[in-house]
Amino acid sequence: MSFLYDRVALIGLGLIAGSMALAMREQGLAREIVGHARSADTRATALEIGLVDQVFETAAEAVEGADLVVLAVPVGAMAAVAEEIAPRLKPGVTVTDVGSVKQAVVTEVLPHLPEGVHFIPGHPLAGTEHSGPRAGFATLFRNRWWLFTPLEGADEQAVSRLESLVQAMGAKTERMDAAHHDLVLAVTSHTPHLIAYTMVGVADHLKRVTESEVVQYSAAGFRDFTRIAASDPTMWRDVFLQNKDAVLDILGRFTEELFVLQRAIRMGDGQHLFDYFTRTRAIRRGIIEAGQDTSAPDFGRSQPGGENAKS
Amino acid sequence: MSFLYDRVALIGLGLIAGSMALAMREQGLAREIVGHARSADTRATALEIGLVDQVFETAAEAVEGADLVVLAVPVGAMAAVAEEIAPRLKPGVTVTDVGSVKQAVVTEVLPHLPEGVHFIPGHPLAGTEHSGPRAGFATLFRNRWWLFTPLEGADEQAVSRLESLVQAMGAKTERMDAAHHDLVLAVTSHTPHLIAYTMVGVADHLKRVTESEVVQYSAAGFRDFTRIAASDPTMWRDVFLQNKDAVLDILGRFTEELFVLQRAIRMGDGQHLFDYFTRTRAIRRGIIEAGQDTSAPDFGRSQPGGENAKS
Repeated sequence: MSFLYDRVALIGLGLIAGSMALAMREQGLAREIVGHARSADTRATALEIGLVDQVFETAAEAVEGADLVVLAVPVGAMAAVAEEIAPRLKPGVTVTDVGSVKQAVVTEVLPHLPEGVHFIPGHPLAGTEHSGPRAGFATLFRNRWWLFTPLEGADEQAVSRLESLVQAMGAKTERMDAAHHDLVLAVTSHTPHLIAYTMVGVADHLKRVTESEVVQYSAAGFRDFTRIAASDPTMWRDVFLQNKDAVLDILGRFTEELFVLQRAIRMGDGQHLFDYFTRTRAIRRGIIEAGQDTSAPDFGRSQPGGENAKS
Repeated sequence: MSFLYDRVALIGLGLIAGSMALAMREQGLAREIVGHARSADTRATALEIGLVDQVFETAAEAVEGADLVVLAVPVGAMAAVAEEIAPRLKPGVTVTDVGSVKQAVVTEVLPHLPEGVHFIPGHPLAGTEHSGPRAGFATLFRNRWWLFTPLEGADEQAVSRLESLVQAMGAKTERMDAAHHDLVLAVTSHTPHLIAYTMVGVADHLKRVTESEVVQYSAAGFRDFTRIAASDPTMWRDVFLQNKDAVLDILGRFTEELFVLQRAIRMGDGQHLFDYFTRTRAIRRGIIEAGQDTSAPDFGRSQPGGENAKS
């Protein structure tokens, strides 16, 4: 059996890294998988459930001798990790990350990396509202997109080898410019998440409606906002801080748009509302045609290993 | 076999009425089910797929001799229907509706109904983003809430008989004041839907991000907004016009809240974002504990007859 990588080092052992480990084992993609997590509990769990062959107390030790290093920590923690591991990286090693924001990662990680290291930023559009090493599952990336934003002059061989790895885990790959990635994600993921968090917060503060009622009658739409709004707080804090410009841009457009609809409601302009709601159906049809969702008549119920909501 | 109602007349033959017909047949709850829809196609379809035993070209004809009349038309159309059927209603008949707004329905329907008619406003928290007679299925109401807002001095026997009917279809029932219903739904359903429509509209207008990309990479959160935003435009137009005050109230709170988060992003106040996102997790847990959703680690994929998003 020939492995795509000999030794893979996972820095951070949460949902994404855990799922990568399980998928790599299932497909026999790496000879050895080692990892590091800041928390001793997480390290113990990762060993106990067999995510990795070895764990290390520091990221620096973990990357020794690895030919693939995956930075699977919150975007805000990438710079420190990059600085710590830089001196221990093997020449020719490929370093990638799974952060939801790409420009900031490049800015913060690249300066620390020595010559001869192939840094290939990546972002799997996969995840769930759960986090931690026990949240991972081997099929998480199946039919999901894994976006790469290679730097100018990136080594084509290194990039396609990494693409082969994630494709072998079931993912579909695409390459794009980091700035464009951040804008697309601000629209398709970051802003929707912020809005969901906000709506849940409103319900939480509303004193005239008891929380129990909000919970009780949540199936009519609100429930699905709460699912999104249950995603990892640290990861999302970093996403918004690191993709500030694109998110603020989209938020500005969102509030403009919302005010126009709000005014239509206040003025009783039913035609405007009807036309608006009719237009939004088209995008929905496009998503079903693109195979990104089914047209089955309901949602909210879950099947482990299927679709998910994480940027 | 003893039926709860002898002859049920469904005015409007869309998703909700169609599902009621299928559920009543499956459970043998009515001796005869007749219906009316404005569109000849809908009437033909309803007969063809066996939703009803008979269809009538007018609502007035349809309600003749019925001991239960269900108004399953958009809230904005209720007044005209009530006026039309009033003269043909059998004394002692129970008239209910399935509108997502209750105060407006009471205001618009009640004045038209003669003495001796039991008007019991209702609202099943069930539905899908699909509409029309073919969208119905018998299990739509299973484990879903069906809220009733009986008027002061309502006939207890008539109310509990209607509750027995929907409970026999698998629904859980609750009684509340119409104004309270409208506020609760503004929080749990109406405002979330408006926000979803808005977000989809923003993506639709955004020229720098091609629609294909928005669609392609929609699984990271946006997709689930589009599902909500694919709901019936007429129904939703009416919901917002008829529940204007509560929706504008909640929208005001929402934008206030959103601006605070937007400011935190602009100012780089990570602590505020982290604390906020941590609080929202609690409501999510409450929803899972209330059995209104599962904690299975993903969403978006669908199973016919399960949860759904409709107010």
